[in-house]
Amino acid sequence: MNIVEQMRLFMEPESIAFIGVPRDTGEGSLNVVENLVNYGFSGKIYPVNPNAKEILGIRAYPSIKDVPGKIDLAVILTPRSAVLGAVNECIEKKAKAIVIVAGGFADAGEEGKALQAQIVRIAREGGARILGPNSLGVANAFYNLSTAFLPLAIEKIPAAMICQTGMLFSGTPRFVLTGKAIDLANCSDIDFADGLEYFEDDPDVKLIALYIEGIQNGPRFVEVASRVARKKPILALKAGRSQLGAKAAQSHTGSLVGRDEVYDTVFKQCGIIRVSDMDELEDLSKAFLNLPLMKGRRIGIATISYAAGTLAVDACEDWNLEMAELSSETVARIKQLYPAWLSVRNPVDMGPASTTAESIKSTAKTFLEALLSDEQVDGVVFIVGALPQQKAFLCADIVAEVAETFKDKPIVSWLIQPDVNRELATEYDNTGKTVVYPTGERAVRSLARLAERS
Amino acid sequence: MNIVEQMRLFMEPESIAFIGVPRDTGEGSLNVVENLVNYGFSGKIYPVNPNAKEILGIRAYPSIKDVPGKIDLAVILTPRSAVLGAVNECIEKKAKAIVIVAGGFADAGEEGKALQAQIVRIAREGGARILGPNSLGVANAFYNLSTAFLPLAIEKIPAAMICQTGMLFSGTPRFVLTGKAIDLANCSDIDFADGLEYFEDDPDVKLIALYIEGIQNGPRFVEVASRVARKKPILALKAGRSQLGAKAAQSHTGSLVGRDEVYDTVFKQCGIIRVSDMDELEDLSKAFLNLPLMKGRRIGIATISYAAGTLAVDACEDWNLEMAELSSETVARIKQLYPAWLSVRNPVDMGPASTTAESIKSTAKTFLEALLSDEQVDGVVFIVGALPQQKAFLCADIVAEVAETFKDKPIVSWLIQPDVNRELATEYDNTGKTVVYPTGERAVRSLARLAERS
Repeated sequence: MNIVEQMRLFMEPESIAFIGVPRDTGEGSLNVVENLVNYGFSGKIYPVNPNAKEILGIRAYPSIKDVPGKIDLAVILTPRSAVLGAVNECIEKKAKAIVIVAGGFADAGEEGKALQAQIVRIAREGGARILGPNSLGVANAFYNLSTAFLPLAIEKIPAAMICQTGMLFSGTPRFVLTGKAIDLANCSDIDFADGLEYFEDDPDVKLIALYIEGIQNGPRFVEVASRVARKKPILALKAGRSQLGAKAAQSHTGSLVGRDEVYDTVFKQCGIIRVSDMDELEDLSKAFLNLPLMKGRRIGIATISYAAGTLAVDACEDWNLEMAELSSETVARIKQLYPAWLSVRNPVDMGPASTTAESIKSTAKTFLEALLSDEQVDGVVFIVGALPQQKAFLCADIVAEVAETFKDKPIVSWLIQPDVNRELATEYDNTGKTVVYPTGERAVRSLARLAERS
Repeated sequence: MNIVEQMRLFMEPESIAFIGVPRDTGEGSLNVVENLVNYGFSGKIYPVNPNAKEILGIRAYPSIKDVPGKIDLAVILTPRSAVLGAVNECIEKKAKAIVIVAGGFADAGEEGKALQAQIVRIAREGGARILGPNSLGVANAFYNLSTAFLPLAIEKIPAAMICQTGMLFSGTPRFVLTGKAIDLANCSDIDFADGLEYFEDDPDVKLIALYIEGIQNGPRFVEVASRVARKKPILALKAGRSQLGAKAAQSHTGSLVGRDEVYDTVFKQCGIIRVSDMDELEDLSKAFLNLPLMKGRRIGIATISYAAGTLAVDACEDWNLEMAELSSETVARIKQLYPAWLSVRNPVDMGPASTTAESIKSTAKTFLEALLSDEQVDGVVFIVGALPQQKAFLCADIVAEVAETFKDKPIVSWLIQPDVNRELATEYDNTGKTVVYPTGERAVRSLARLAERS
C-alpha cells in the first residue's frame, strides 16, 4: 500500500470503529459518534464500549474484535492505560489505520516515550500506521467526517491543515480553515511528509497550511515539500521558535524542536511561506484561496480616507512594494471627478469625489476601473468605511463586479469603521472576489505574499 | 482665555452654528444637524443656509451674522472658495472657536498654503482659534456632540483621540474608541499639545490616543506630552513612517513629516507608547482601559490547548517576559486534577483536567485561582475555546469572578475558536475584567505594555 492509499484509509474511510466511545449523548457530552451523525457521515460507524448495547440507535460492540465487518479506521479514545491493549486488538482485527487520542506518551517523559515506541513497533509489524498519540485525528468536510470529539463547524473550504494540535482543526479566529485536516500531534509515525504527499494531487485542496512544532525526518520533508510547494501554496506556522517555546513544544508533543534558523532555511529552500502568527495564517489563507497572484509589485490605492491610505503606503514600503506611477489616462479619468484645486496622486482619495453617501458607489466603480485598467498597476488596495447606519456605503457588489472584469489583478479591501455590524465585512468576503482585512498593514502584507508567490 | 477654556468652546459648546449645512435630511444625506439631534445634543443649534428657512424644524439663518444669540463654536461646511468669507463673518460675530471642514489648503500646494496662513492670521487677530482645515471637528460622547457629517456610533468610553484624520473618530475595526475626539487634520492652529493639555485633567478621560502625521511645534509637544504621560497612558500611531508614506502624509494634511527616528526618540522621551498599527491601537486601548498594570514580568498561562500555550510562550520571549516558576503550592493544587503520569508545568494545560464540557468551567476556576494567588505570577494569559455549538465552554463569568478577587493582576483571554458567533468574545469583553484577543501574540504584547507602564 503506497502512502496515498494508506492516507485514504484515514481521510475517506468506509468504516470507522471508535474504541472507548462514551455512552452519553447530547449537549456537552462531546460524543464523536453523535458529531459524525450530525455531519451526515455516510460510512459505517462501529461504537466500541463494553457497557453499551447501542449509541444513538447504532449497535455497539464490547470489543473491536466483535465487529462483524472490515474496519478501515480505528480511533482509540480510551485512557492511556488501555491504549496498548486496544492497539493489539486493532492489529488482530487487521485495521490498517489507527488514531490514538490519549496523551501521556512522548509528551510525558521517558516511560511514555518507551510506550509510544512499543505501540508504533507493534502497529508497523501488523501492517498498520499510527496517527498520534495525543491527536484529534482527521477531518474531511468533503466526506462529512471528523474524528474529533469536539463538535466543529466543518466547511468545504478547498484548504488542508496538517498540524500538531487539535486547536487548528477549528480554524483561525475568524475563519473556518478546515476543509481537510490531519492532527499529527506526537508525530510518532504518520508525519508532515505523509500528509503533504496525500494532498499533493487532491483536487479538493488548493492550499495547504502547516502548524509545526518539530519535524522528525528532515530530508524526506524537504524532498516532498519542495515538490508539493511548486503545485500548491504551503503556509507554515512554526511554534517553539523561542528557547522557552521550544521547551513548551517538547512538553506538548515530545518534539525535538531544533534551532529556529534551521527551520527558516528549510522553509525558504522548499518554497514554503512562513507566517508569523494566527492572524497572518488567516489573512494569507483567505488571500490565496480567493485572489489571483500579483504579477508585479506596483500598488494602486483607492481610499475614502487619506490617512488610511497613508498607513497603507507605509506598509507597502515595509513589504517592499512600490506605489504605481499612474498613467496620464488614469489621472485624467479621476481628475474629472475632482474639484479643480485637487491633483490626482496615488493613493487616490475617493472622498472629494463623493459628496453624498450614494455617490460613493459610483465613485468607487470609476476609481477601481481606472486603477485596474492601468498597466502600471499590479494590484489594488480598496479602502472604504462600513458605517452600520449607512447601508449605502456598502460597495461589496461594486468590488465583485469590477474584480470579475479584471481577473488577473488582486483587490484587497480594508473596512475602516468598527465592525459593530460584522455582516458588512462578511458581505465583501462572501463575494469571493476580494478579501477584507481589519487593517491596511495586513491587507498590504497579503498582497506582498501574492507577489512573492507569482 | 487659557487653552483649556479655549478648548472647552470646541468640546462643550453651549451653541453651535453650522455654516453651509445641507437642506437634505434622511438616510444618506450626511446632515450634521440631523446627527446632532439624534445624539441628543442639548445646546443651541443654528443652521446657516441662505436657501433654507428651517432644517428639521430648527430655524435656519441666511448668514451667521443673522443669528440672534452668542456662538461658542462655528463649523464651516462650505466649499473651499467660500471659507475665507465665512471666517470673516465668524470673526464679526465674535465666535472664538472655528472648525473648517473643507480641504484644499496646506494639503493642496502653495496657493492653498497661503490661503490657510491668511485665514489663521485673521482668526488669531480676531481672538479666535481654528481647528483644521480638512477636519471633521470634534466629538464628545459625554456631551452628545459630534460635528462630523458622518453619523457615528459615539459611546461614553473614557478615552480621547487626537488625530489628523476623520477615520479614527469612528474607532478601530472592532472597537468604538471615541469617548472624545479632536480631528486636528491640517493642524494649522490648534495642535496636539493643545488637545493634550485639555485632556490632562479631564476626569472623563483615562487614556489618550494620538494619530500623528507631523508635529509642528516639537518643544511644546515634548513639554506637554511628558507631563500628561505621567498622569495618563498616551498611545501614538504615527503615519508617514516610510519615505513613500511621508510623501503621502504631506499630500494629506500638508504635514512636514520629518525623520521617523526623531519621532521614535521623542515618543520614548515623553513616555508615549508607540503602536505599530490599528490592531495594536485597539488592543492596547482595551488593555489600558480595562486591566490593572502588571507589576512584574512573570507570566502564568492556563490553556485548553497546549499548542496555543506554546505560541503564547514564544510571544512572551519576543516581548521580554518570563515564564513564572510556579510555587510548590500551585503545582500541588493543579496536580490534584491531573492523571498520575502528567506533571504540572507552566503553561498549565486545562485539557487533561476537563473531561466534559461542563467541567471546563470548574477547571478554569481552579487553575486561574491557583495561578493568580501564586506570588511568582504577575499576570495571566487565559486560553479557551469558544465553540458556537457549546455554550458550556463560555467561561466569561468565571474569569470576571476571579478577576474581581485578584484586582492587581491582569488577565488577558485568547479565544481560539472561530468567532462565527462573535457574541461569545463580546461576552468576555463586556465583563470589563478581561480583554479578549484574537491571537496569543497580541494578548501577550498587551501584557508586556502593561508591565512597561508599571
